Amino acid sequence: MSRFIKDRTSKKGLAPGSLVFVGNRKMESPQISLMDYDEKNLTESVVTDLEQLRNLKSLPTVSWINVYGIHDTEVIQKLGEIFDIPSLLLEDILVTDQRPKFEEGEKNLGFIMKMLTYETDTYRISDDQISFVLGKNYVLSFQEKKASFFDPVRERIRSNKGRVRTSGSDYLLYVLMDTIVDHYLDIIAQIGDKIEELGNLIITKPDNKIASDIYQFKVEMNYLRKNIRPAKELLMIWLKSDRLFVNKKTMTYLNDLTDLVTQAEESIEIYNNLLIDGLNVYNTNNSNRANDIMKVLTIFAAVFIPLTFLAGIYGMNFEYIPELGFRYSYPIFWGVVLLIGGGLFVFFKRRKWL
Amino acid sequence: MSRFIKDRTSKKGLAPGSLVFVGNRKMESPQISLMDYDEKNLTESVVTDLEQLRNLKSLPTVSWINVYGIHDTEVIQKLGEIFDIPSLLLEDILVTDQRPKFEEGEKNLGFIMKMLTYETDTYRISDDQISFVLGKNYVLSFQEKKASFFDPVRERIRSNKGRVRTSGSDYLLYVLMDTIVDHYLDIIAQIGDKIEELGNLIITKPDNKIASDIYQFKVEMNYLRKNIRPAKELLMIWLKSDRLFVNKKTMTYLNDLTDLVTQAEESIEIYNNLLIDGLNVYNTNNSNRANDIMKVLTIFAAVFIPLTFLAGIYGMNFEYIPELGFRYSYPIFWGVVLLIGGGLFVFFKRRKWL
Amino acid sequence: MSRFIKDRTSKKGLAPGSLVFVGNRKMESPQISLMDYDEKNLTESVVTDLEQLRNLKSLPTVSWINVYGIHDTEVIQKLGEIFDIPSLLLEDILVTDQRPKFEEGEKNLGFIMKMLTYETDTYRISDDQISFVLGKNYVLSFQEKKASFFDPVRERIRSNKGRVRTSGSDYLLYVLMDTIVDHYLDIIAQIGDKIEELGNLIITKPDNKIASDIYQFKVEMNYLRKNIRPAKELLMIWLKSDRLFVNKKTMTYLNDLTDLVTQAEESIEIYNNLLIDGLNVYNTNNSNRANDIMKVLTIFAAVFIPLTFLAGIYGMNFEYIPELGFRYSYPIFWGVVLLIGGGLFVFFKRRKWL
Amino acid sequence: MSRFIKDRTSKKGLAPGSLVFVGNRKMESPQISLMDYDEKNLTESVVTDLEQLRNLKSLPTVSWINVYGIHDTEVIQKLGEIFDIPSLLLEDILVTDQRPKFEEGEKNLGFIMKMLTYETDTYRISDDQISFVLGKNYVLSFQEKKASFFDPVRERIRSNKGRVRTSGSDYLLYVLMDTIVDHYLDIIAQIGDKIEELGNLIITKPDNKIASDIYQFKVEMNYLRKNIRPAKELLMIWLKSDRLFVNKKTMTYLNDLTDLVTQAEESIEIYNNLLIDGLNVYNTNNSNRANDIMKVLTIFAAVFIPLTFLAGIYGMNFEYIPELGFRYSYPIFWGVVLLIGGGLFVFFKRRKWL
Amino acid sequence: MSRFIKDRTSKKGLAPGSLVFVGNRKMESPQISLMDYDEKNLTESVVTDLEQLRNLKSLPTVSWINVYGIHDTEVIQKLGEIFDIPSLLLEDILVTDQRPKFEEGEKNLGFIMKMLTYETDTYRISDDQISFVLGKNYVLSFQEKKASFFDPVRERIRSNKGRVRTSGSDYLLYVLMDTIVDHYLDIIAQIGDKIEELGNLIITKPDNKIASDIYQFKVEMNYLRKNIRPAKELLMIWLKSDRLFVNKKTMTYLNDLTDLVTQAEESIEIYNNLLIDGLNVYNTNNSNRANDIMKVLTIFAAVFIPLTFLAGIYGMNFEYIPELGFRYSYPIFWGVVLLIGGGLFVFFKRRKWL
Repeated sequence: MSRFIKDRTSKKGLAPGSLVFVGNRKMESPQISLMDYDEKNLTESVVTDLEQLRNLKSLPTVSWINVYGIHDTEVIQKLGEIFDIPSLLLEDILVTDQRPKFEEGEKNLGFIMKMLTYETDTYRISDDQISFVLGKNYVLSFQEKKASFFDPVRERIRSNKGRVRTSGSDYLLYVLMDTIVDHYLDIIAQIGDKIEELGNLIITKPDNKIASDIYQFKVEMNYLRKNIRPAKELLMIWLKSDRLFVNKKTMTYLNDLTDLVTQAEESIEIYNNLLIDGLNVYNTNNSNRANDIMKVLTIFAAVFIPLTFLAGIYGMNFEYIPELGFRYSYPIFWGVVLLIGGGLFVFFKRRKWL
Repeated sequence: MSRFIKDRTSKKGLAPGSLVFVGNRKMESPQISLMDYDEKNLTESVVTDLEQLRNLKSLPTVSWINVYGIHDTEVIQKLGEIFDIPSLLLEDILVTDQRPKFEEGEKNLGFIMKMLTYETDTYRISDDQISFVLGKNYVLSFQEKKASFFDPVRERIRSNKGRVRTSGSDYLLYVLMDTIVDHYLDIIAQIGDKIEELGNLIITKPDNKIASDIYQFKVEMNYLRKNIRPAKELLMIWLKSDRLFVNKKTMTYLNDLTDLVTQAEESIEIYNNLLIDGLNVYNTNNSNRANDIMKVLTIFAAVFIPLTFLAGIYGMNFEYIPELGFRYSYPIFWGVVLLIGGGLFVFFKRRKWL
Repeated sequence: MSRFIKDRTSKKGLAPGSLVFVGNRKMESPQISLMDYDEKNLTESVVTDLEQLRNLKSLPTVSWINVYGIHDTEVIQKLGEIFDIPSLLLEDILVTDQRPKFEEGEKNLGFIMKMLTYETDTYRISDDQISFVLGKNYVLSFQEKKASFFDPVRERIRSNKGRVRTSGSDYLLYVLMDTIVDHYLDIIAQIGDKIEELGNLIITKPDNKIASDIYQFKVEMNYLRKNIRPAKELLMIWLKSDRLFVNKKTMTYLNDLTDLVTQAEESIEIYNNLLIDGLNVYNTNNSNRANDIMKVLTIFAAVFIPLTFLAGIYGMNFEYIPELGFRYSYPIFWGVVLLIGGGLFVFFKRRKWL
Repeated sequence: MSRFIKDRTSKKGLAPGSLVFVGNRKMESPQISLMDYDEKNLTESVVTDLEQLRNLKSLPTVSWINVYGIHDTEVIQKLGEIFDIPSLLLEDILVTDQRPKFEEGEKNLGFIMKMLTYETDTYRISDDQISFVLGKNYVLSFQEKKASFFDPVRERIRSNKGRVRTSGSDYLLYVLMDTIVDHYLDIIAQIGDKIEELGNLIITKPDNKIASDIYQFKVEMNYLRKNIRPAKELLMIWLKSDRLFVNKKTMTYLNDLTDLVTQAEESIEIYNNLLIDGLNVYNTNNSNRANDIMKVLTIFAAVFIPLTFLAGIYGMNFEYIPELGFRYSYPIFWGVVLLIGGGLFVFFKRRKWL
Repeated sequence: MSRFIKDRTSKKGLAPGSLVFVGNRKMESPQISLMDYDEKNLTESVVTDLEQLRNLKSLPTVSWINVYGIHDTEVIQKLGEIFDIPSLLLEDILVTDQRPKFEEGEKNLGFIMKMLTYETDTYRISDDQISFVLGKNYVLSFQEKKASFFDPVRERIRSNKGRVRTSGSDYLLYVLMDTIVDHYLDIIAQIGDKIEELGNLIITKPDNKIASDIYQFKVEMNYLRKNIRPAKELLMIWLKSDRLFVNKKTMTYLNDLTDLVTQAEESIEIYNNLLIDGLNVYNTNNSNRANDIMKVLTIFAAVFIPLTFLAGIYGMNFEYIPELGFRYSYPIFWGVVLLIGGGLFVFFKRRKWL
């Protein structure tokens, strides 16, 4: 199955406009949790009856509704109805091979992003789609499966550290996105570390596995870029839009986030360049080594093949070979051998092969 | 015949402004079918007398007139006259090597697109030109030959699933274009799958066919890009225009479609990169293998050529070679052989060739 | 003489602002012909006295004055005076290594373009500069030498086919430019055809000439791009200008023309890519072949060099070699030979060299 | 540890919005110095009590507060409070792996830059983050560690040379930035010098170390670009902003500074190109050398291997080899040897191998 | 010393804002000449007392003050004072490693450009900085050393050819710049000529020097681009500015000049591509040659090494080798030799090595 573009057959037969889950079902039944807070109070609950969410919109508190598991289209449909989510956005939330994007609605804003995980056993990056819906005083987050990415954010809300509890839903969304982008930088730093190590190996201890490693890293760099570049687009389109529900102060934070994504993008570019340069230098070293091997071969062959011929001559059984009977033929032969050897030594020396 | 740019000799002698079919005639006589619907009613018919289409424009229902076979210029001319299609657009519909484009008229809009098919026997992509004319309450579609691409759309209209029956002609056009773009993604996914497989083969089981495969894939990637990039332009120019006949709601769908085309474009880019990287790594592995072969050659030659020379010496027939008569010459000879062999072993070991 | 940038020494010493012909004189004395037409009437004549052109400007008919041979500065000067051509434009018409460009005057517009010819004997593209001056009801065309490019246009005017006779001078210019651009596409199609063939040869029957052919094609692709890219600029600048004398209807045609030039440009890009990919794959196949050759060499050498050494040993003339006298030495020797040979066979088999 | 992207784990668990130092602590306790001047007077002092800085804002003199060591968050917090520095800017000052950037506040402007140092023992560039806060009549500069970069600026203020003393805080900031950018150009000139030398070595005296050197230089070029490109962005965003506190005259200087950074960027590009070209040419020379080696090998082998075979034949011990008994066999043998040798000489000569 | 970026140490210690000459002093004391003209009159003089220039500004004539030698800061200072040249522009004129640029002042405009010279003995391009100051009715030109570049312009003014004498200071500046740009094109044409020749050599008569030549040309192409690209920027920024002192008619000439610079830039790009392609094809031909060499080696070795082994066998001295005594052993041996040889011939033939 291709990793870079996903099979859409389950969707293909269907009309656009119908709610269909496209992806791998990664958990059993969906779990919905709610955090409702203002500066003073915090309510946390597991949501079993969606109807109870309906009146949240009119409360002054900030509500964060997190949904694990998005394959149950009915649940999504219901949430969409309660929070006035446009139907196309609902469809996009359900299709897990979306390109990250920003969707502007009238009553809320939609954000499709990717959480990336670097699986250290296969050295591959995998992605989960995370969608957000931002309203005046609520954030909905949709995750494909149960995951602990956002636990530090929860902890921060509980302990009332930082600005979350005193800020609005826009700031909450920023904190969640910041968590995602931090993971990007983290993965790049991890892979980057290995790439820089590889760069040293290329020079100090090149072996045959290096080319395959470089290929593997390049594939992952493409994977990163594929997911991170549209995230930057998303932020830039958002920041250029009317910025519904976005507090001026949060803007500064979002600009900072954009900087982080730019940094991620530039680092990917740099590591890509290092990989290309590394492969080139590795190839050059390879051909240097090939030349060295060939020099050794040529020296041995050039010295001993003529000499063997000479010895072969006096191993012939012709009846009349005058040299054979001479008293000093043998020492003379050795002399000639040394002469030829010396001559070739000078020849190779001059060509700087020795 | 060149695949990437078509011969225009049949057109060349002629004045621009004359209706001429340029392409391969892919079927016998044209077939025209009509679907006329609103939310409640649906009429399907095969059109034999074009005049019966004339009053459709004034009806409130949505009409989809599909034309298979565009080589009959008279039919096209007549349709043009009935639906007020500008003559340049008519000409473009007839020339099958058009670059995909959008043409804004006063009474209707024209769209030239390409349907792509991946022929699994030749591993080549072929294209058919599909043109659309969008009016207030009708869509005309022109196809080079009979094909089943749009059958799911017909089925959806018949079964009244999704939004088609309740929306206007703009939404119908969107659904048709979406079908085309889905085919793009599908083809990219199919080829992409093979490219990713190839990436594994390069590392695990490289053989001589790989380079040719890479070339073949690169050709097809160029073919895809050639057809898909202008499709994105088409959409972007359309969305920036006055958007005649386009409902605000449909705009969201068209934005989504543009995202899909962007995703297609980016995937092509990624696969192109993977192919380039793959070839580079394959080359590196190749030269690693060459080095290994040369090492074996050099080791054998460097060890045995000098020894053969040594043996040659004592095979000479000089009368006075003192060593020949010594009692222990032969074992000493073997000792020297082992010594030289051992010395070379150490030499190669140090160079890390063994 | 460099082909991509021309020597300007004949111009260099001179002040800008003086009329000097820069180029190779390609014919004897200039020939000027006139076609003057409206929907009903057509006058064709060879112009001998330039003064007779003076009153054409005030007639309602469209006049096409074609000049073969531009080395006679006096003729050009005179025409410039009659038709109020700005002097800088006149200078540009005379300098045949101009970059294609658009020049906006007050009473007329200037266009410098290149007609390209693919010389099938040398496989090289050559260019002739063609300049146009567009006025309210006239078109002047300047060609370096007599050529038949525009004969089909003349024929069309005579036979009153298409829209030429019923349209203005802007449409005539469009038709002339369309002829030029059609030649571009034609040449690209011809060379493209050969490049696609070459792509097949690389895979099925590579020979040493291929690299040189690729180089030759790349040179020509550069030549094409050099001339076609500014032609696109020309059109785009023109279409963004005030569009003096340009009828709204003709605009649609000019947009179409721009599409054709874009298609030309994209095709050049694609063929360039195919050439690069082709060379890469050819190189890879080359090194595969080198590896195969080296394998054969190594197998032969590794098998027979040790065996020859063995035979050499028993060819030595030491008096005391115990094996020499043994009854079964010879068959045992053969056994050892087969053993060594078999061992190496297994060794090479395991390395997948056999 | 990856050099191109830094580990953010110390930050990751924490809420954005909290002041945390992220980086390596490069010195003991922070040192704060103050230069307060106008055209006539200059006060220099080491600041021990931050409160004494509070009334500086209301004085007409220009104050330069320089902070060495930024790991003491309390000091930074206090300074932020005194000078109304926005908290996000404070956070950014503390995180030493920031991408250089410009932050617009209401009462002051923030600038994050990088000072680069080329460590001549390791041939690596290292960076220190330098942040500036520009207010109406003060500049705050924050450095990670004690360094002498700005000593010439101090000297100039003391000696009242140039325009510093007669200009405002904007000019002071310009002078400080100019110092940083001058260091960029200096490092590029140093490395560039080595790269140009390397280019000569490649042609005149290539050795195996060159590829590794090129890799090393490319890594450093990436490092330079990573730090310099955002510095240009910073300047351009600043110059496009409202330019708070920036005198019109200083603008000219800032434009000049932008030119310098552009020059830096272009030089990096050029040296990058030279490195790529250099490696290519080095590779080509390498394969030329390989060909030469192989020619020598082939000539020796092709000449002497057949001759050795010939000698081997007459070394056989068959009882009936008629040639063995002939009187002139031996001289004839030599004749044949010379003939074969001569023939091969002609053969190689024709192939231009000799 | 690096050629692409110059050492700024002489400047570094100093405050921006001080007049310091940075460069190599290329002549003794500065020489200043004046041409003052209108349509009817021309005064030429060598200026010894700068004060005499002061009243030129108020005359209606056009004055061209040319300064050879810019190392005397006092002279420059004085000129600056007389013609109200902004001090930053004065500084830039004195720093000879400036990036070409345009500086807009209130009373005059500044232009920093580079005159390029192709030194045919070293095949290197060298540059001299030429600065212009354009005022309402004067042009100041500053050159590093005495040179004859502008002599044809002087001649033209004297002989009153072309439009110089009848136009203003803007036209004079245009003519001077045109001279500089003509030199660019000239150098590109010279080097381009050699590059095209090299392209032929690569195919017809490749030798080992080619790679070094390509490197040398690429270095010079970088050098050209470095100087020409900012010249284009300069022109474009100027033409987009308020165009102080620029007559509408001169604008057309300046547009033409921009076209020339664009042509220069494009030619550099094309030649760069040709060099890259040339090196690639050269490498491919190289590896073709390597393959040919290896084929010869392999054929000789594969044929004669086994045969030598065979001869070696019958040269062994075992007492009991039955074949030795057979009457027809020797002819049979030759038969076997021919058989093996023939078999290998067929083998190599099938592999298309012969």
